[in-house]
Amino acid sequence: METLTRLEATIAERRKADPKSSYVAQLSHRGTPVMARKLGEEAVEACVAALSGSREELVGEAADVVFHLMVLLADKGVSFEEVMAELDRREGVSGLDEKASRST
Amino acid sequence: METLTRLEATIAERRKADPKSSYVAQLSHRGTPVMARKLGEEAVEACVAALSGSREELVGEAADVVFHLMVLLADKGVSFEEVMAELDRREGVSGLDEKASRST
Amino acid sequence: METLTRLEATIAERRKADPKSSYVAQLSHRGTPVMARKLGEEAVEACVAALSGSREELVGEAADVVFHLMVLLADKGVSFEEVMAELDRREGVSGLDEKASRST
Amino acid sequence: METLTRLEATIAERRKADPKSSYVAQLSHRGTPVMARKLGEEAVEACVAALSGSREELVGEAADVVFHLMVLLADKGVSFEEVMAELDRREGVSGLDEKASRST
Repeated sequence: METLTRLEATIAERRKADPKSSYVAQLSHRGTPVMARKLGEEAVEACVAALSGSREELVGEAADVVFHLMVLLADKGVSFEEVMAELDRREGVSGLDEKASRST
Repeated sequence: METLTRLEATIAERRKADPKSSYVAQLSHRGTPVMARKLGEEAVEACVAALSGSREELVGEAADVVFHLMVLLADKGVSFEEVMAELDRREGVSGLDEKASRST
Repeated sequence: METLTRLEATIAERRKADPKSSYVAQLSHRGTPVMARKLGEEAVEACVAALSGSREELVGEAADVVFHLMVLLADKGVSFEEVMAELDRREGVSGLDEKASRST
Repeated sequence: METLTRLEATIAERRKADPKSSYVAQLSHRGTPVMARKLGEEAVEACVAALSGSREELVGEAADVVFHLMVLLADKGVSFEEVMAELDRREGVSGLDEKASRST
């Protein structure tokens, strides 16, 4: 999954670019609420694609979710590694099924 | 990011487990609409955490988004590698900023 | 709240219009997944507006939520009256707080 | 649609109740982010119900969307009448189809 390592570096770099030339810079320039909104919207689109779209649409929407999640994390100064560490921790401590014991 | 490779394997395995003992099996058993819904809900929670929560909450919600996205992809027979390939393709063809030219 | 009665009638009428001249007709033409997606997206925008936007933005996004909910209901052949009846039923049977006893 | 007038009054009253006895009071007590999140989540559920659920489920989820929207508006000091006025304004000024001219 080196794609994500590279993507994270690219996002960090583009954040400083000219908003006119970069989508990432444009999102950063518009602020956290816009980035948070984009994540929510892309997830809704992935949700709809999974229920009513083609496999190709789901792949595209899933990529959008990952991309906009990384843009939001970068904005908040959270590295993707921290998210991976959290996933590792959950698996290490109590298995993937930890969640089963949480109220959902 | 070998975490995701391992997570994907774990999800594939747990899908076949007893719904009583595994959260993943329980989600699979309940069907695609529930998995799609969970992705949307977790993204809303990440969105809210980015705007109003602590750094720790954002990390936890981001992990939930990634986890439930992978559960949904597994359900639809889409590998995470395909999503990574789509992200690579976008960067290769036209940069991360391809999206800027799409209607959003 | 006669606004909603009138809005529902207008939506029913516009659904049959030319997609080129009417936003409602355009949504109907594009199908249920697009209408469902719009509802989800507008709710995310209202959610973000409540946390980070102005009062004016929240009013606008709330109007979008109501509008797209009514478009979706019309598409599925559900009248807004049925939704009102459900709200009445909840209040009548057990109070608004019925929800408190449901798993959430 | 006097249901909504009554619902708004009930919500205003319940907001001041004991969180232990009232779902509305509990939401208010937990704060705006929780109310905003609930709106987003319920809209995702309505979206999924429209695509994969029964008519009955859609009615229930639509009621949840309206209810949680009103709870959020009350929290932000916005009356439902303001939202209705905005819908009226859109229809008055340029028809329901105003939105068609907006970038979406």
